[in-house]
Amino acid sequence: MELANVLLMLFVVFVLAKLSSLVVKKFGIPGLVGEIIIGVLLSNVIIGDQSIAGYLDLIYDVDSGYESDGYTILHTLAELGVMFLLFSVGLETRVKDLMSVGKAAFLVALLGVIVPFILGYAYIMYMSGDANIYHALFLGAAMVATSVGITARVIKDMKLTDARESRIIIGAAVIDDILGMIVLAIVSGMAKSGGIDFVEIIKISVMALVFVVAILLFAGICVPKIYNWRKARIERKFAENKNYLPMRYSMLAVAIACCIGFGYLAEYIGLASIIGSFLAGMIFAEYVFEWKLEEKIEGINTLLVSFFFVYVGIQVDLSSVDQAVIITTVVVIVLALIGKFIGCSLGAKIGDKSLDKGSLSIIGIGMMPRGEVGIIVATIGLGIYIASEHCYAISSELYTTVVLMSVVTTIIAPPLLSMAFRKKYKSDYEIMPEDQL
Amino acid sequence: MELANVLLMLFVVFVLAKLSSLVVKKFGIPGLVGEIIIGVLLSNVIIGDQSIAGYLDLIYDVDSGYESDGYTILHTLAELGVMFLLFSVGLETRVKDLMSVGKAAFLVALLGVIVPFILGYAYIMYMSGDANIYHALFLGAAMVATSVGITARVIKDMKLTDARESRIIIGAAVIDDILGMIVLAIVSGMAKSGGIDFVEIIKISVMALVFVVAILLFAGICVPKIYNWRKARIERKFAENKNYLPMRYSMLAVAIACCIGFGYLAEYIGLASIIGSFLAGMIFAEYVFEWKLEEKIEGINTLLVSFFFVYVGIQVDLSSVDQAVIITTVVVIVLALIGKFIGCSLGAKIGDKSLDKGSLSIIGIGMMPRGEVGIIVATIGLGIYIASEHCYAISSELYTTVVLMSVVTTIIAPPLLSMAFRKKYKSDYEIMPEDQL
Repeated sequence: MELANVLLMLFVVFVLAKLSSLVVKKFGIPGLVGEIIIGVLLSNVIIGDQSIAGYLDLIYDVDSGYESDGYTILHTLAELGVMFLLFSVGLETRVKDLMSVGKAAFLVALLGVIVPFILGYAYIMYMSGDANIYHALFLGAAMVATSVGITARVIKDMKLTDARESRIIIGAAVIDDILGMIVLAIVSGMAKSGGIDFVEIIKISVMALVFVVAILLFAGICVPKIYNWRKARIERKFAENKNYLPMRYSMLAVAIACCIGFGYLAEYIGLASIIGSFLAGMIFAEYVFEWKLEEKIEGINTLLVSFFFVYVGIQVDLSSVDQAVIITTVVVIVLALIGKFIGCSLGAKIGDKSLDKGSLSIIGIGMMPRGEVGIIVATIGLGIYIASEHCYAISSELYTTVVLMSVVTTIIAPPLLSMAFRKKYKSDYEIMPEDQL
Repeated sequence: MELANVLLMLFVVFVLAKLSSLVVKKFGIPGLVGEIIIGVLLSNVIIGDQSIAGYLDLIYDVDSGYESDGYTILHTLAELGVMFLLFSVGLETRVKDLMSVGKAAFLVALLGVIVPFILGYAYIMYMSGDANIYHALFLGAAMVATSVGITARVIKDMKLTDARESRIIIGAAVIDDILGMIVLAIVSGMAKSGGIDFVEIIKISVMALVFVVAILLFAGICVPKIYNWRKARIERKFAENKNYLPMRYSMLAVAIACCIGFGYLAEYIGLASIIGSFLAGMIFAEYVFEWKLEEKIEGINTLLVSFFFVYVGIQVDLSSVDQAVIITTVVVIVLALIGKFIGCSLGAKIGDKSLDKGSLSIIGIGMMPRGEVGIIVATIGLGIYIASEHCYAISSELYTTVVLMSVVTTIIAPPLLSMAFRKKYKSDYEIMPEDQL
């Protein structure tokens, strides 16, 4: 590893991302869109015989799986960035608040999974001229995902974390991720075995449920008990001995350890790391002010999160796009947007009768962005070879489609979501820029 | 790159480092010593056929230069960590304060370079039975370095950044780094050409001076002017139009960009990255409270700095140690400690007559730790092959000696420094644990 090269890469990526974010915000577009665009430009603007990303040592080869050192480093910082982003969203999500939107969130997630999956599957099987059942299943699975990261950043930027719609969206996105992982487990099981692998399906479903419920119970019941016990103990010791100094440790270090540790656990049992980090954040949500965690985690986020969105952009390869891919992509994007909007609005309507039309729109739009999750699903499909069909579980054209679908839904949803929020809250809501000088 | 493996490695390293830091602090030893010990244990405790570091994918081969992905990632986070540590020290170092200790700091640095260099050179040439002039020169150069990072952390932990001795030490360590780089340039120039390369010496000396002076002038003169100009402009615009909103950007993002960017610049012109980051911190020192940078940078430091000290420990290879190496190492360590103590105390005495004996001791001890800088010098020596002598510019035995000398001075100095500070300030100084719950 050449240190000077790595520092140059990090500096260029960081500065371009922040500047681009600043520019798009001028037009009322969330900063992350600017950061993704920088990523797309870095990997698709070719000078001489290689892209700008190549000059920055950001080289990744899909076929061989080769990653340059710079790419590995950016990939890691991006992953840590999205984990800490979700952690800070978790910090603002108290268990009792999530419970209060639990039923609506569950129905939003469930219908938001079923409707897009069916639309995607049916289009490939019966309309696109591809009609490979595995391709259809994998496209459906990629359309199921919702990227909590993207929506969470918009909600955080708009300072609307407390709004009822926001809580339903975040709750549903978390449940959606879990349902999406189950769908992925099912389709990849089918692709690998040429049929449905029930053991695998049951295994991942049970593990996901146990993981989430265990952390929620831990956060909601055990943590307050530990907190009160420790507080009472320190007070008792101090009453006995005025010179008593409790063992001092940094709650920030504990929080960071939980963010990384639970992220690892989630990854280990086959979920996405961000689910673990989000749930870890929830553990600290009750005490975030007392432990002064917010400002410090914000420092970490300012450093790392931009790397994630640039990384998402870098993975887009515009060179493999031709007319057929464009048509399929446009249809898939429309289906992806409509599918989530109808499914999620419907779920919200059934789950919570008190929501008005504006709120249903916010929820339908908020669930649209696929972000990195759709891309991950597609990447997994590219890695499964089906011998009986002499093909991979997803074609390289559909892979491009999924990436573009993920990026477009990710770019389209934030401004739509901002608009929907503004329409609903325009009377009592002023556009607030980030509270940073 | 396997994400789950990377997360597991980061989690294990982070948790062990923080726990070990907590344990050694119980005995009044600075936390970084615990973190370095964890690194030494990780790479030297062998289970089966590989070290614990091997199981965590932290593999580095000196001969081939091979780094595993995990090692590359730890290396990068460690480097960013020490850069942000120095940045936060820079944040607390105002240019005018450094100027007020300028003369003393310069003399401390100068004599702190000359005395250890002569001692190290003379010992190898005339006493150790090695008597290779290049080995002697490189050992001397490795004994010259002072690791600002280690001393800075002790000073920061003890909340004594404002003490006169601390400012002299930090100032001298910065100047020392620059002098050390010049010494390194001279000896590596001699080793490469078989004589003194005057062009190289003049080039690196001039560049180092221009770099430092330019940033100091920028921080001391230009930044206040830019600040006042922008403030006046915003006030004027606001007086004209009550709805005027100034372009909002995050000063934290600007600070991070400067920390990485100046670090890169320093690395690029042949200095160490930490010098650039330290100077970048000084640019923001006047406005650190107004821009609320401290808490947020502390968040970044809590995440990253432990990785640096574990990384320093991981590079120690205890398996190549035999009796001859031990004798040489013990002598070199003693010379390294005495050389810095005498040279720096003497420099301080000449430079500032008002310092009492306690203060001179503090300065002599504070300049002792070599940290990573000595190791870097040795590593460079290992990379230069001298054809006429059929050997490398440093022998592998002396390499081990330098690494152990760096680690031992690094471990010995902090508790000695704490003691010296406590002795001097015992009347008005209470042991303050880190102000984190």
